[in-house]
Amino acid sequence: MAMRVWVLGGGLIGGGWAATFAAAGHDVTVIDPAADAPIRLARQWEAAFLAMQRAGAPPPRHLPRILAAAEGPAPDWVQENLPENLALKQAVLRDLEPVLSPATIIGSSSSGLSPDAISLELVHPERVVIAHPCNPSYLMPLVEICGGTATPTAVLDRAEAMFQAMGRTVLRLNRAMPGHLVNRLQAALWREAVYLAQEGVASLGDIERAVTLGLGPRWSVIGPSTVFHVSGGEGGMAAFLDALGYEVERWWSTLGTPALDTETRRFLVDAMAEADSRPVTEIAAARDAALPELLAFLEDRRRQTPQSFIMGGNDR
Amino acid sequence: MAMRVWVLGGGLIGGGWAATFAAAGHDVTVIDPAADAPIRLARQWEAAFLAMQRAGAPPPRHLPRILAAAEGPAPDWVQENLPENLALKQAVLRDLEPVLSPATIIGSSSSGLSPDAISLELVHPERVVIAHPCNPSYLMPLVEICGGTATPTAVLDRAEAMFQAMGRTVLRLNRAMPGHLVNRLQAALWREAVYLAQEGVASLGDIERAVTLGLGPRWSVIGPSTVFHVSGGEGGMAAFLDALGYEVERWWSTLGTPALDTETRRFLVDAMAEADSRPVTEIAAARDAALPELLAFLEDRRRQTPQSFIMGGNDR
Repeated sequence: MAMRVWVLGGGLIGGGWAATFAAAGHDVTVIDPAADAPIRLARQWEAAFLAMQRAGAPPPRHLPRILAAAEGPAPDWVQENLPENLALKQAVLRDLEPVLSPATIIGSSSSGLSPDAISLELVHPERVVIAHPCNPSYLMPLVEICGGTATPTAVLDRAEAMFQAMGRTVLRLNRAMPGHLVNRLQAALWREAVYLAQEGVASLGDIERAVTLGLGPRWSVIGPSTVFHVSGGEGGMAAFLDALGYEVERWWSTLGTPALDTETRRFLVDAMAEADSRPVTEIAAARDAALPELLAFLEDRRRQTPQSFIMGGNDR
Repeated sequence: MAMRVWVLGGGLIGGGWAATFAAAGHDVTVIDPAADAPIRLARQWEAAFLAMQRAGAPPPRHLPRILAAAEGPAPDWVQENLPENLALKQAVLRDLEPVLSPATIIGSSSSGLSPDAISLELVHPERVVIAHPCNPSYLMPLVEICGGTATPTAVLDRAEAMFQAMGRTVLRLNRAMPGHLVNRLQAALWREAVYLAQEGVASLGDIERAVTLGLGPRWSVIGPSTVFHVSGGEGGMAAFLDALGYEVERWWSTLGTPALDTETRRFLVDAMAEADSRPVTEIAAARDAALPELLAFLEDRRRQTPQSFIMGGNDR
């Protein structure tokens, strides 16, 4: 069923969400007062719709509207994508609330602020949930959702049902954590990557390849705990922990804890340029060509043999 | 050029290596005194050769030989896969060395012991390198190699050339680190996965899906540093660090540090069973059906458009 969706903020995340909601057939309005919003968004949507086509999904039949301020009938869903500035988010949502209907849910794309903090100035804080995409949201199927202390289960259930109807897999957090699941797991691996590169254990390029040629493909089929469960043989996780738990703990005890200080930042900029000297736009274009194909392949395999891709699909 | 390869120890890793070397056309002998070695290895190789066929690689024309003890002409390469017991490795290699030729290189599959320690009792410690596969070695293209303080560059170059001729991508460590690259990066992410699950932030199944549906596919195309380089837009890594470095540091500062104590082990065994209740053999079979197809797809895409898979292939 088509919903009225307002997307607050038309940056990279908001623009991506707008394309995602539009492709799902919703009636989308982007609210962004910046003078260059229409040009920026047109450019982003061109790339997004091409990528969706590559992934086998039909592009939307209508472009979202772009307005400088809210107007028209109250939306069913507001997706908030303002800068990660708590006071700003609180003020904008407080000013917006009077034109919303009692049933309007506000999904926030925040990756670091809690739903309780974001909703603090609202008359109805219980309408706020975190709805955090995995970028780019028009390609990646994941949405992390998380309510605040005031959010009733029924609101989370409605949010989850909406995203599932859009073909999304919802990961439901029982409580707020900075970075949710995806960004925290990503940050944990990256911290060790930064450490190994800066310590000179291997080149940054070889560390990238350890992931793109090894962990990435394996983790596209089988999750990080299941990897160990399977490596335990018939005894599974228990047998793995008995045989190799001490070894994992030894690795854990020697993982690095770099800081992103001036020296590390300079190192990372240089090491990245050495690993891949192409302009960033060229690397991004290469990713946008490859990722949709890969996702379409994985989705297709999951549909054909749901049991062979081990944690795939909406099987929660 | 076909080499004579001795594989010491026919467990999961050694048996996998034997299949890998045999598929590359080498003359392989597995040395394993266990009475059940032939039956175990026959079963493993059946699965391995089926998986190789699924991945588009021809199975070997000859099965490796299985012997209880070394005999016959000296090998060009010894791949050591004994249990992670330093004294045992040292003793077996010391006893084996007299029948090796001066040019024989010993590659060790150890994931935790240093080449200096493993080679301590040898007359020619400089012939020892770590050659660590990403399991299963007959499917995964990565080999991590690392010399000891006595290992000359020429030996590492020979090792690298041999693996490259076998279609492998070599990651070269400049110095030994427990877990090398792949296992350390894997352990870093898994530590946070264990923490999030045990803290009840999300179900273990949802944490698995954060990886299989999000990070895994993205990391199959673009490495963990390149992800942030691209998210910085035209300004790349420097712009990303300026805009979001503080956020990453905040996530880093709140990452968990669980221990694999009795309580955590019990939790993991239960949570894994809840996330996927199938017998481990069934999950392993599902992985063995899906992973070769995915790897063949990725390899094919890399061949067709080498620039679109960002860190792919032998481009070091």
